[in-house]
Amino acid sequence: MTVTTLNELAAALGLELRGSDAAASTPIEGLAALASAGPHQLSFFTNSRYYADLGKTKAAAVILRAADAAQCPVACLISNNPYFSYAKASQLFDRRPKEPAVIHVAAHLDPSVIVGEGVSIAANVVIGAGVSIGAGTVIGANCVIGPDCVIGPDCRLYPNVSLYHAVTLGDRCIVHSSAVLGSDGFGFAKAGVQHHKIAQLGAVVIGNDVEIGAGSSIDRGALQNTVIEDGVKIDNQVQIAHNVRIGSNTVICGCSAIAGSSSIGKNCTIAGAVGVINHVKICDDVTVTAMSLVNQDITEPGVYSSGTGIDATGNWRRSIVRFRQLDDMWRRLLRLEKHQGKSP
Amino acid sequence: MTVTTLNELAAALGLELRGSDAAASTPIEGLAALASAGPHQLSFFTNSRYYADLGKTKAAAVILRAADAAQCPVACLISNNPYFSYAKASQLFDRRPKEPAVIHVAAHLDPSVIVGEGVSIAANVVIGAGVSIGAGTVIGANCVIGPDCVIGPDCRLYPNVSLYHAVTLGDRCIVHSSAVLGSDGFGFAKAGVQHHKIAQLGAVVIGNDVEIGAGSSIDRGALQNTVIEDGVKIDNQVQIAHNVRIGSNTVICGCSAIAGSSSIGKNCTIAGAVGVINHVKICDDVTVTAMSLVNQDITEPGVYSSGTGIDATGNWRRSIVRFRQLDDMWRRLLRLEKHQGKSP
Amino acid sequence: MTVTTLNELAAALGLELRGSDAAASTPIEGLAALASAGPHQLSFFTNSRYYADLGKTKAAAVILRAADAAQCPVACLISNNPYFSYAKASQLFDRRPKEPAVIHVAAHLDPSVIVGEGVSIAANVVIGAGVSIGAGTVIGANCVIGPDCVIGPDCRLYPNVSLYHAVTLGDRCIVHSSAVLGSDGFGFAKAGVQHHKIAQLGAVVIGNDVEIGAGSSIDRGALQNTVIEDGVKIDNQVQIAHNVRIGSNTVICGCSAIAGSSSIGKNCTIAGAVGVINHVKICDDVTVTAMSLVNQDITEPGVYSSGTGIDATGNWRRSIVRFRQLDDMWRRLLRLEKHQGKSP
Repeated sequence: MTVTTLNELAAALGLELRGSDAAASTPIEGLAALASAGPHQLSFFTNSRYYADLGKTKAAAVILRAADAAQCPVACLISNNPYFSYAKASQLFDRRPKEPAVIHVAAHLDPSVIVGEGVSIAANVVIGAGVSIGAGTVIGANCVIGPDCVIGPDCRLYPNVSLYHAVTLGDRCIVHSSAVLGSDGFGFAKAGVQHHKIAQLGAVVIGNDVEIGAGSSIDRGALQNTVIEDGVKIDNQVQIAHNVRIGSNTVICGCSAIAGSSSIGKNCTIAGAVGVINHVKICDDVTVTAMSLVNQDITEPGVYSSGTGIDATGNWRRSIVRFRQLDDMWRRLLRLEKHQGKSP
Repeated sequence: MTVTTLNELAAALGLELRGSDAAASTPIEGLAALASAGPHQLSFFTNSRYYADLGKTKAAAVILRAADAAQCPVACLISNNPYFSYAKASQLFDRRPKEPAVIHVAAHLDPSVIVGEGVSIAANVVIGAGVSIGAGTVIGANCVIGPDCVIGPDCRLYPNVSLYHAVTLGDRCIVHSSAVLGSDGFGFAKAGVQHHKIAQLGAVVIGNDVEIGAGSSIDRGALQNTVIEDGVKIDNQVQIAHNVRIGSNTVICGCSAIAGSSSIGKNCTIAGAVGVINHVKICDDVTVTAMSLVNQDITEPGVYSSGTGIDATGNWRRSIVRFRQLDDMWRRLLRLEKHQGKSP
Repeated sequence: MTVTTLNELAAALGLELRGSDAAASTPIEGLAALASAGPHQLSFFTNSRYYADLGKTKAAAVILRAADAAQCPVACLISNNPYFSYAKASQLFDRRPKEPAVIHVAAHLDPSVIVGEGVSIAANVVIGAGVSIGAGTVIGANCVIGPDCVIGPDCRLYPNVSLYHAVTLGDRCIVHSSAVLGSDGFGFAKAGVQHHKIAQLGAVVIGNDVEIGAGSSIDRGALQNTVIEDGVKIDNQVQIAHNVRIGSNTVICGCSAIAGSSSIGKNCTIAGAVGVINHVKICDDVTVTAMSLVNQDITEPGVYSSGTGIDATGNWRRSIVRFRQLDDMWRRLLRLEKHQGKSP
């Protein structure tokens, strides 16, 4: 959709349009933030920080809650969840080029590959024996899909994705470029000083509606599978080690690393650059803030953090010297308190 | 090997089988953990945490130390190093599809490329002039190997690996998908506010039995080479900068970053998400725990850490305020001690 | 250039040659550090740490400041900025194989692609509709370039790079292998427990003379563009989220992560493995040291840090216990001070 009217948009989004009748036929060309939107753009109001922008917006219309409609100088689309309505609207205005539903002549598919209806397979894709690809799925150029993988319907793999053998993707999954699914878990047995490889016999099983970011990697399990449940969203450059289980609808932001055999519950938010050490369990409904190290189980829902905040380096250098002396400081404090107790 | 008998397995692993004669002919179909193994699966006991599981296991047999045999309700395979024996057994049960020992018609090899016996080169591989590839090596689909690379025998490159020019890989190396070897080191000279590129004239030299994880990158040296010695194991998404040297049999876990011109000794364990700043030397036999920053040389073997443990965010916020005041706290503590010394 | 004379080199670098007339015709085969350079290698002196090496060097000549010439036992090339002169010399000795200025027969270009003069496109490259590629640009094997991208002249994309649609690269940009530009920003709207994708309607705009390291990812904007200004240098495995803006000539070292909608000013240095949380503003001329978390705006030029230095794990364990008690320690210290004030 590149041009539509406000009226049509309201219908497509299932929202009530409030405003002058004239507004209903305004052609809408796209989406923009309140402050930058022009008279042919739709905007949205979700955050009270932007009240001033709302009052001055020149958008054709604003998606907002009924309670905020009075503050809006232009037409309104009334939503109980304006951010969700914005998400739906964004899909309508996505100008991402459509891939043709064909198998490119320069793709290399094993004769045993089963391809659903309407599948798009781009140039230089290589697909191994025994793979099945669900209807409507799009495989970007130069992807490699190992033997025995199962890819559900309506998935999208962007270019240069690698799937090792026996990886399962559910329905409507998105995998971004340079991601790797099913690589060997990092398992070795030591004999003397040498590390001997433990063959990784498990696989990777990914549920429905999972998104996996650019350059992320998910290792196959050692004996069992590595499991990513339905609705999990994984950002770029996230590392998921072998045997990990991520519960449904959990979000993991960029550059986080989840070490082997750990599990994260449902509906968690793991912010960016977080580390989770191996064999740790995180329960449902946990938020971990950016760059924290989860070095023990988390058994209660809540918000967790580690690290220190940013500081001028000069002061920071003094703090880190004292950090190493913290236990000494503690003992000296106790001694002072004890002495104080004795003093008159 | 998909089915064998326990007797044959014992012979293949060089282990003594203890148990009833009946057990010797039990067909074994795979490996599993003690708690989940069924009567046609082999298991192993390496960690006293799982004593209870050992007593109840339904495995066909368990690899364990002679001293633990009495606790085992099923047949035993006696090993001095059960975890290493498990590693060997895992290789026997790896069902990873074998690649055919052919050069795919859709691979692009410069006519000067020297290919050993039994080499497998998949579709869309591109190999530059002057490259040699040792016998038995497997190059996965869509790999690109720059001019003048030398790849030893029995290596495996998984799909979508990139090697720049003049990278050397020893024997039996494994490189996982999206890894990049020989990219330019990050070197610039400043003139005014602009950064001018320093051509990276060194190469990357990788020893024997090295494994490099998915999405990892190893930059070529500025003048000398970046060197990874024999037996080093590098996990996913590890960054090794220019001029770095990693000593033999050192293990580097996922998402760690080793900055330029640093060196790590032999037999070290660098846990996940560790940072090592540039020009640092770490001696042999050092362990660095997860997400630590090595900001100075480590000259004594031992275990090292930095960072703070995970905490509820509310308390953590208070701690980080005080962290910035640590030097002030220290001075006030000293003042109190001085005063106390004077008090009656 | 593989062999030249010192005289020719001095002319090429625009530097004055001081030393015997004999030195002027010395053939120079390459560059090396002061300590390892032989009589046919050029070296450079930029750091007083290496004074001893300068006095003993066996190099054919040394690039250095006029003030240091008296300490040099061999011929000198006099430079006001020896490190910059070294950078220029390194380019002369780069033996990187040249790519032929042809479009490989196994490349797949949409008929609408506009290709400048002298462009090199390697095997298995896939380029979408509406793309234009400037003169002299080199596209490595197995790169995928989405529709509507604009790539300036004299760029170099190394193998296995992925560009999504509508990414713009300026002149003389370098993009290393496995990098991903234009992947979807990580944006979701929550409805119940589920996360609904927000289509990312912005693009990525990259200025001139930008270098992007191996495995790095730069997401497209949600509504506006993600913008990387001229002269920015980005190392390996860096993650730049949607809507971020990086100011000109800023340097971002390996494995750093810049979260959504943050901006970094001009001429900043972001060291390795740094995290910047979302919606943060960092002003011009800021340095952030390795592995710091920028969890608030930085409004003054200067050097900033977070984290704790490396320590023996035994002591560190005690420190992190006390870290959690820091606010308690602070209160107890205040109480002691108050009591002391009352004490005789």
